[in-house]
Amino acid sequence: MEIRNPYLLFLGDAPDQLAAKTANGVRVWRPDWCIGQRRLPGCNADCAVPDLTIEEAAAAGARTMILGVANRGGFMPDSWIAEMVQAVSLGMDIASGLHTRITAIPELVEAAKAHGRSLHEVRQPTREFSVANGTRRSGKRLLTVGTDVSVGKMFTTLAIERELHARGLAASFRATGQTGIFIAGSGVSIDAVIADFISGAVEWLAPENEPEHWDVIEGQGSLFNVSYAGVTLGLIHGAQPDVLVMCHEAGRPHMRGMPHFPVIDIPTCVAACLEAARLTNPAVRCAGVSINTSRLDEAEGRAFCARIAGETGLVTVDPMRDGVAPLVDAVLRD
Amino acid sequence: MEIRNPYLLFLGDAPDQLAAKTANGVRVWRPDWCIGQRRLPGCNADCAVPDLTIEEAAAAGARTMILGVANRGGFMPDSWIAEMVQAVSLGMDIASGLHTRITAIPELVEAAKAHGRSLHEVRQPTREFSVANGTRRSGKRLLTVGTDVSVGKMFTTLAIERELHARGLAASFRATGQTGIFIAGSGVSIDAVIADFISGAVEWLAPENEPEHWDVIEGQGSLFNVSYAGVTLGLIHGAQPDVLVMCHEAGRPHMRGMPHFPVIDIPTCVAACLEAARLTNPAVRCAGVSINTSRLDEAEGRAFCARIAGETGLVTVDPMRDGVAPLVDAVLRD
Repeated sequence: MEIRNPYLLFLGDAPDQLAAKTANGVRVWRPDWCIGQRRLPGCNADCAVPDLTIEEAAAAGARTMILGVANRGGFMPDSWIAEMVQAVSLGMDIASGLHTRITAIPELVEAAKAHGRSLHEVRQPTREFSVANGTRRSGKRLLTVGTDVSVGKMFTTLAIERELHARGLAASFRATGQTGIFIAGSGVSIDAVIADFISGAVEWLAPENEPEHWDVIEGQGSLFNVSYAGVTLGLIHGAQPDVLVMCHEAGRPHMRGMPHFPVIDIPTCVAACLEAARLTNPAVRCAGVSINTSRLDEAEGRAFCARIAGETGLVTVDPMRDGVAPLVDAVLRD
Repeated sequence: MEIRNPYLLFLGDAPDQLAAKTANGVRVWRPDWCIGQRRLPGCNADCAVPDLTIEEAAAAGARTMILGVANRGGFMPDSWIAEMVQAVSLGMDIASGLHTRITAIPELVEAAKAHGRSLHEVRQPTREFSVANGTRRSGKRLLTVGTDVSVGKMFTTLAIERELHARGLAASFRATGQTGIFIAGSGVSIDAVIADFISGAVEWLAPENEPEHWDVIEGQGSLFNVSYAGVTLGLIHGAQPDVLVMCHEAGRPHMRGMPHFPVIDIPTCVAACLEAARLTNPAVRCAGVSINTSRLDEAEGRAFCARIAGETGLVTVDPMRDGVAPLVDAVLRD
């Protein structure tokens, strides 16, 4: 799966901005790829790119229409189907991050076939993987890990890729979730892989490379989130990271959606991730900590980062407020 | 999926005893369920039960024909298909542990439908699972863990179930792999579940139960096997074990199939498994160690167990030679 750009962002009738979170993430990180958005009556989301009809987007050169929006109740309205059929008829591929499978819509499948276009389901792995063998690969690898889900791992990973590029270094963002895949144009939705192949899929996703090339790999889940820890461990083993970056949300009251689980403290989480990572790369180190301080005001946020830096002895940044330059300094320090 | 017994063991043209390892495991652990075996010309395996034709097995009351044998090269010979069609025609279900999908054989699917019989693919999960929530469940749980794959986890788990039953205690073996599923008559092939649902599937497999009931759960993989560690961690978290039993093969030269990975030492492996298990059950303890000493002679085997007992301070047995009574004593000691 290689998603061709530029993109038309399809927002449908998204009831609010949150429903279009994925599309908005693509626009933030790949503005040059997003030539417009398609909104239907009732849409209350806005990705701040020009509103285009399907015809206008096709004429402007859009090669893929991105469904980076939540549909209501897993139900696909006829109006959406008509738009997709029109898009493939005018030469666009469709890439969907929905749970509802677009490849189960007969008229869309038929239209795509007739026009030689692709339907990408980014939540579904498109190939079979091998089990991991743990053989060391050349090239450098960074993996983001976290105290929980949704703490800023994708944001941190992309910010690090951008900073490495700004310094003239070779680096590739490796996407492991749906938004990341739209942003990278390819990747593996790692939590949808068969359990036996988690780390094997990561070995495939971040293959052997030039000795000085950085793969910056998007982490998922947490070793301390009971729902997803298996995914996280397979990701750590498959990545063979030289460097970990720990991500955390300040002020989260408990593990997401689980009031019966307290959030793990950062030093314990760093130690556990390093211990796990040593199995495939004994030289792994943690370069620093990336804190999402959006729940706090600026003074509280700075105080929080300072406290974590003190507790861990690691560079600690809020990537939104401060950028990741100090983190990347620590990544590159041998 | 509930596999109905008694069973007819289908051995086909298995070239040697190893190819019929699964069928043989079923015969060893569930002799009362195995009323016969069906062997074709060229079969060199023998499960030491009466040779029966399909007709004879049906007449004797066989309710499921078990394909617990490796077929050659993933190819399903016509002779096997004819036997399966005959079996369903005579009222048997088919339960297959093959990689080749029997539900992809049109004439078999048709015959099963015509006769109202089931085709079980035990390597494939038959339902959707939820993500784990880690909520504590009543009942007691034991999970076997190991230094590597194929070290005796299933054997140890089944031996513990048998010993608990012999002591008049309520206990259920919970199967997580194909041979175990044939032996239990149900279960989940945990390494075939979608990565997101590993621990959720285990929560389903070993549900809430009477306070004094023991679920004895078959472990898979190892936290130190890079190919499968994600499966193992999800299993540990989903099981919420009160008690772990560590399994190990004495004298294994390196991790199975991976000469570049040394076998982890037992104390380190015990500590890592306990640390992981504490996330969902802070009171977890390791009751003992089960050693497969088949590579050693008896004196060496005894010396090995004595050494491990000394190093770990834990009851250490060879379950084949000594049985698991001392282990179960340690399990039941509070």
